[in-house]
Amino acid sequence: VSVTAAAGFRAAGVAAGIKSDGQLDCAVVATVSGQPVVAAGCFTTHATPAAPVVVSRRHLAQSRQRVAGVVVNSGNANAATGPAGEEEAERTAGALAGLLGVAPEEVLVCSTGIIGVPLPPGRVAAALPSAVAGLDGGPEAARRAASAILTTDTHPKEVVVAGEGYVIGGMAKGAAMLSPRFATMLAVLTTDAVIDAAELADALQAAVASSFGRLSVDGCQSTNDTVLCLASGQGRPADSTFPAALRRACQHLARQMALDAEGATRLVVSRAVGAATPEDAERAARAVADNALVKAACWGGDPNWGRVVAAVGAAGVRLDPGRLSVRYGARLATGVAGRAPAAEVDPRVIGPGPEAEPREDEVWVDVAAGGIARPRDAGAEVRLATVMGARELLIEVGLGVGEHGAEILSADLSPEYVRMNGTPS
Amino acid sequence: VSVTAAAGFRAAGVAAGIKSDGQLDCAVVATVSGQPVVAAGCFTTHATPAAPVVVSRRHLAQSRQRVAGVVVNSGNANAATGPAGEEEAERTAGALAGLLGVAPEEVLVCSTGIIGVPLPPGRVAAALPSAVAGLDGGPEAARRAASAILTTDTHPKEVVVAGEGYVIGGMAKGAAMLSPRFATMLAVLTTDAVIDAAELADALQAAVASSFGRLSVDGCQSTNDTVLCLASGQGRPADSTFPAALRRACQHLARQMALDAEGATRLVVSRAVGAATPEDAERAARAVADNALVKAACWGGDPNWGRVVAAVGAAGVRLDPGRLSVRYGARLATGVAGRAPAAEVDPRVIGPGPEAEPREDEVWVDVAAGGIARPRDAGAEVRLATVMGARELLIEVGLGVGEHGAEILSADLSPEYVRMNGTPS
Repeated sequence: VSVTAAAGFRAAGVAAGIKSDGQLDCAVVATVSGQPVVAAGCFTTHATPAAPVVVSRRHLAQSRQRVAGVVVNSGNANAATGPAGEEEAERTAGALAGLLGVAPEEVLVCSTGIIGVPLPPGRVAAALPSAVAGLDGGPEAARRAASAILTTDTHPKEVVVAGEGYVIGGMAKGAAMLSPRFATMLAVLTTDAVIDAAELADALQAAVASSFGRLSVDGCQSTNDTVLCLASGQGRPADSTFPAALRRACQHLARQMALDAEGATRLVVSRAVGAATPEDAERAARAVADNALVKAACWGGDPNWGRVVAAVGAAGVRLDPGRLSVRYGARLATGVAGRAPAAEVDPRVIGPGPEAEPREDEVWVDVAAGGIARPRDAGAEVRLATVMGARELLIEVGLGVGEHGAEILSADLSPEYVRMNGTPS
Repeated sequence: VSVTAAAGFRAAGVAAGIKSDGQLDCAVVATVSGQPVVAAGCFTTHATPAAPVVVSRRHLAQSRQRVAGVVVNSGNANAATGPAGEEEAERTAGALAGLLGVAPEEVLVCSTGIIGVPLPPGRVAAALPSAVAGLDGGPEAARRAASAILTTDTHPKEVVVAGEGYVIGGMAKGAAMLSPRFATMLAVLTTDAVIDAAELADALQAAVASSFGRLSVDGCQSTNDTVLCLASGQGRPADSTFPAALRRACQHLARQMALDAEGATRLVVSRAVGAATPEDAERAARAVADNALVKAACWGGDPNWGRVVAAVGAAGVRLDPGRLSVRYGARLATGVAGRAPAAEVDPRVIGPGPEAEPREDEVWVDVAAGGIARPRDAGAEVRLATVMGARELLIEVGLGVGEHGAEILSADLSPEYVRMNGTPS
């Protein structure tokens, strides 16, 4: 399931020869009817967006948010490729449009992979006839599509949210160059809800802000980030629950990305509380999430809270040095550091609501209060060792000046991340 | 030599028992006369400065910039230690003041090491009698002092600049938590120039801004950064060459820090040119210098210029995507990546002027122009391989919109950096 779960959509994943070794590297998501439906998109704010971002943004405007299909290729970002890159993105869109019998602007394109290398001309377009022939509404096709968009991800990322009379399905990829200002990744979502273009755009923007926009794996913003949502209108009208359900779908995908980040052995939730403003809370949480020394300590399971204090103190936020506090926590159900949490990885149908808080599997240890170290008894030492061994680590810093809070999802920084990114691809 | 090169200063380094294994961990720099002289200081802008920063800043104000001695301990930052930490810093200053026969505010204190762990009460003070007994104006004592302030640095950092009738000497430490907003490290400089307090403060601030302030190893600002300069007045009056000579001394120390950064195998000079404003140039250079993916590629010797484009495009600066250019260069005299450049490490007497540009040992290869990859012939490929193997790598990105430029010094990101910082100390 995932992008084919909502009524009216089909998908395919094929090998177009962009990646070597015949790996899947081209996904198509299209309506069953072949006709355009309501769509919305969120794109990177990068100053040098990739060619597919430029083309998809233009197509969405030209088609007045009506889209019949999406082509995603992995293995090459078609970024920093100049006018030739843009022509290539248009050629790909035109090829799928021709096969579906719609206008070129009713097709969107996404690319992910290496930057600055020209996409081999016509190679993606040449793979589209077989992709379209293989379009299917079943779970296998959705899984192949979700697999075809991966780069250094180790497994597909899929989600299905069962709403009130409608379904939202989605797939995503993202393993590095995941960062602030939504940044981040590619995701394609589909729904059968009946919704107009403006409502869908608003709901998508809000969902992205509180999911992918709160994810920062390495502080590196991408040239290609794109989140698309297509709505077939074959289910019931989107009611007041729809925005929350879409947010839930995006949050579930964002969480899978953090768990599968390049070289990551842990998911790290950085939380700031006691901030004077929501902006200060987010800035402080980001400062902890992006701090190389904190991230390296997370990898090593070192409860070095002094680095957390150093990170927020450099963040330019209001805080009271004499009231700073730090807690480390873990969600034990996510498992042990370094091992893939199988239950989180499987696509599964989830409810539309937010996760309940507090979670029963959370364990917390206070390590600093009043700006200085907090003494720990033997029991606290045992709990701290358990926490620092967990797959999902929570770091909460209290600024001691207000009532606002924020959370940022990230991952630890491992030697493997450096090795993966230091080796020419 | 170094801090004892200028007339009127002596130094000592002893083991106070803050570090384990009897390593040198306490340095004292004092006037030969034991009497206070003109001094200036630059301190971290961190919101939770360490106790020694609070105390030294207060002492400089109370003494009207008159200082007789400085105590530096390594192995413990005395940061996030609350009022008890401040009392301990005062106790250390008071102990040296008593031994020298001056007022407590005529002594400054610096600490570097782990954050959040209380400094063992009285331990530094207890080591001061033997340190003062060992104060000496020779090169051996200066080297012991420079060694006693190190943490994860692998070698002492010293400099002597021979000015016009005056001498400036300095020592520094810094290996991680080296970052923007001056940030960075500890340095103690001495000079025999005759200069008043206001002039010295201005010269030091300017020198720091264009040296340590242009150094960003890991984007992590420290709680303890301090740069001090004491002027004995035993040489000639500081003339118009003094500010440049002080800058040269600071730049030389900053360069040694980047070369000896934690886990670093290369010095990386990130340079932005063609920027619309000086601020844009600095922001773009910092964005490249701090980008985890660029830094990992530097470690691996991968000329992945797409990441450089991605970094500046996310930096929020004006640029022309169709005129972006990237060049990789190297200074071959600095040696081969991963090997310590012996010539740079040795303390040596250098002239007061800036380094001449262009340097004859520089090799450059254009890898992108007009926003896209630039074809390379066989000769360019060979030159690029040489460049990517060098100990000192230069990355120049042209923004294509103006005439302004800036440079930031940094280091590569290695798996060893993560291992060093992921292991509880």
